[in-house]
Amino acid sequence: MFEFMTVRELYEICRADNAVETDNVEYVELEGWVRTNRDSGKLGFIALNDGSYFRNCQVVYLKEKLKNFDEVSHISTGSAIHVLGKLKLTPDAKQPFEVEATEIILEGDCDSDYPLQKKRHSFEFMREIPHLRPRANSFYAIFRLRSVLSMAIHEFFQDQGFVYVHTPIITSNDGEGAGEMFRVTTIDDTDFSKDFFEKEAYLTVTGQLHVEAFAMAFRDVYTFGPAFRAENSNTSRHASEFWMVEPEIAFADLEDDMCLIEEMVKYCIQYCLDNAPEEMKFFEQMVDHDCINRITKVRDSHFARMTYTEAIDHLLKADVKFDNKVEWGIDLNAEHERYICEEVVGGPVFLTDYPKEIKAFYMRLNDDNKTVAACDLLVPGIGELVGGSQREERYDVLEKLMDEKGMNKETLQWYMDLRRFGGCKHAGFGLGFDRFLMYLTGMANIRDVEPFPRTPRNLKF
Amino acid sequence: MFEFMTVRELYEICRADNAVETDNVEYVELEGWVRTNRDSGKLGFIALNDGSYFRNCQVVYLKEKLKNFDEVSHISTGSAIHVLGKLKLTPDAKQPFEVEATEIILEGDCDSDYPLQKKRHSFEFMREIPHLRPRANSFYAIFRLRSVLSMAIHEFFQDQGFVYVHTPIITSNDGEGAGEMFRVTTIDDTDFSKDFFEKEAYLTVTGQLHVEAFAMAFRDVYTFGPAFRAENSNTSRHASEFWMVEPEIAFADLEDDMCLIEEMVKYCIQYCLDNAPEEMKFFEQMVDHDCINRITKVRDSHFARMTYTEAIDHLLKADVKFDNKVEWGIDLNAEHERYICEEVVGGPVFLTDYPKEIKAFYMRLNDDNKTVAACDLLVPGIGELVGGSQREERYDVLEKLMDEKGMNKETLQWYMDLRRFGGCKHAGFGLGFDRFLMYLTGMANIRDVEPFPRTPRNLKF
Repeated sequence: MFEFMTVRELYEICRADNAVETDNVEYVELEGWVRTNRDSGKLGFIALNDGSYFRNCQVVYLKEKLKNFDEVSHISTGSAIHVLGKLKLTPDAKQPFEVEATEIILEGDCDSDYPLQKKRHSFEFMREIPHLRPRANSFYAIFRLRSVLSMAIHEFFQDQGFVYVHTPIITSNDGEGAGEMFRVTTIDDTDFSKDFFEKEAYLTVTGQLHVEAFAMAFRDVYTFGPAFRAENSNTSRHASEFWMVEPEIAFADLEDDMCLIEEMVKYCIQYCLDNAPEEMKFFEQMVDHDCINRITKVRDSHFARMTYTEAIDHLLKADVKFDNKVEWGIDLNAEHERYICEEVVGGPVFLTDYPKEIKAFYMRLNDDNKTVAACDLLVPGIGELVGGSQREERYDVLEKLMDEKGMNKETLQWYMDLRRFGGCKHAGFGLGFDRFLMYLTGMANIRDVEPFPRTPRNLKF
Repeated sequence: MFEFMTVRELYEICRADNAVETDNVEYVELEGWVRTNRDSGKLGFIALNDGSYFRNCQVVYLKEKLKNFDEVSHISTGSAIHVLGKLKLTPDAKQPFEVEATEIILEGDCDSDYPLQKKRHSFEFMREIPHLRPRANSFYAIFRLRSVLSMAIHEFFQDQGFVYVHTPIITSNDGEGAGEMFRVTTIDDTDFSKDFFEKEAYLTVTGQLHVEAFAMAFRDVYTFGPAFRAENSNTSRHASEFWMVEPEIAFADLEDDMCLIEEMVKYCIQYCLDNAPEEMKFFEQMVDHDCINRITKVRDSHFARMTYTEAIDHLLKADVKFDNKVEWGIDLNAEHERYICEEVVGGPVFLTDYPKEIKAFYMRLNDDNKTVAACDLLVPGIGELVGGSQREERYDVLEKLMDEKGMNKETLQWYMDLRRFGGCKHAGFGLGFDRFLMYLTGMANIRDVEPFPRTPRNLKF
């Protein structure tokens, strides 16, 4: 008689325009956690969340109908319960339905020192309890969205035939000058000849170099996995462990790369709006009033293109005092990026063709011998969201750039060899997955979009 | 006039039953790599692979039509080329179509020391060149299948509303007795108070403990990410870095867990047969003649259930000499598992209710006080494929089990607390992704299914 249903399923069949579908459902069985519980002595209300949906199910219980009314009225916030009851449509109420309980069973109670009582807590406080915070609205919303956005990434690339590559986490490449690295070891000193791999090993900072090898077999490939930085920087945008998306496309130049970035960003925005509408509404109401408007605009924009050199000209002519001096050759700061994006272009813009000195060794040298075929996607609100480039496919030019930057050619001979064995023009980019999530939602600190964030001096569980 | 097409697209429009769709396509443009090139002086054939499809496209070139015939005839295996030509259906040939070249341009040639010439190489040799081996048939097949199987996992869980959780790679949990761990550090000694996190940090061996916390918010969750073992064991089934799938379901018992495992395994098998048919055919022909038959049978089987105790009885009665002595309490060896699976059951079987001494601390103690609610899925051919369990949700019982096993309760207090704050019955399992891939294909060594395998004393690039 009682049909087991999730709260999500109940919301689906009880949509105002869909009420007829409830005809067959009269008595339902639910399981979940108590978000709130209040009673008037004769009548009680439990807001039940079962993890399937952002919104709660209102469970009504009556003294005259529930044998254990007194026990139920004392069930505390956070407890796990099992509910049998009658489904009732409530078209005039805030929620489209409620469940009138015929039986409520306590599965697991919640001790009185439970930190997530009704009152609001700061995000800082919540970081101390990463094992409990997914139950609080902001985190409940962000972590489902994180899952939805992950799937958006996979569907976007797989639908186009890209091959997903699990590039290695432990690597012997000592980076690309991308930052400090963690060492991976089983010994207590630095006699690496006795270490597990008989040489120094690190946690990867990028899967790009490895995935390039796979692009030379599968044409279109992508990675999506964790990357690491051992930088001692305590900012709201840096974590020691984070997830990156790194596509690589063969027979492709910088323009192809930018088209792919633009498509991906727009696809992901639409996917999140479609598949996490309740969560996005929550962020709009509680975190960043402009977030849906901002990303909808980006979805509908043409992404402009501007060279670095043009951008410098705009900045030099700007009637604005920047904190950091502008001249050709500088690495742009967030203030410069946001000025270009928000004031000059008024929308998303790719800056291209950066001075070779400020970019990585693998980026393709332009004919001017001064700039490289790099692109950064700047978006209103935060500045850089994605960085990409065409890769240097000419062996001799690559070798020269590596010499100039003092790279270790011996350990990267395999990478250079990709140019000797059927190399071709190719390009790719890196998307910081966590920062993309911050951008979509307005969440201000990377620690609050990662399940168990790792930062300097902070390793909780 | 020339339409850019991938080889996959050409095979799709040129299927024998579909030839009409080629009507609109006359001249095509292709890019890819030369697998073979041979000529008779007047006529040449290039087998072109562009990464989009397992099979090659045959490119025909004629001396009388191609100005640079002599140059083209010297293009070596492995080179990247650009082809313009006329699409011709060849319904009577081995391949359904060919492209008669009007122009062939060399994009990137291939040096004469290219290791992948025509002749076959051993898998051992190929492990020395992980940056090039994805271009060889076996690896070209396995790495696309790896991508397809990854997507099968995501679609299976996401379609049912599971939330994907990025559990941390760096952890302070010193494991679950699951094996040796890698340490993550930025110092040269063991004064961990001065280390990056101001304490000892490790690479994770499992995401389960962390993901349980998320199951208590989202009900149904899963991880899919890298895990690590610093064990010095050089077997064909052990790698130091591998990928794991770890689902966790709340309000669920061992039977629910086994149903989920069964569904997932069957779904993934069907998904691979549907989405990588050419690759599966290759494995059947070249690697393991029985592989498609084997997994098709598993897909169509009912998965049996048998307790550990029943299994021991069968083994004791068996008319077989086992290398390892059988008695209640032993950890079953592969020979035992295969006997039960292949001789007694004749198909996939879940062994359940193992002695608590040989299983992890978090598994739920049965009423007999001797066994725990664990399950291992055994499949014909290899033995154990998946291991799962219902988790101990009773705080006091969990604490007792942890004491018995000498676990560090202090660092796991957060995990124990999940039982104090609205705990409920729950279950989960772990699937070794790489081993699943080996099982599906018959590939015998884990080093040959991972893009850049990491094993003791072996860290290539």
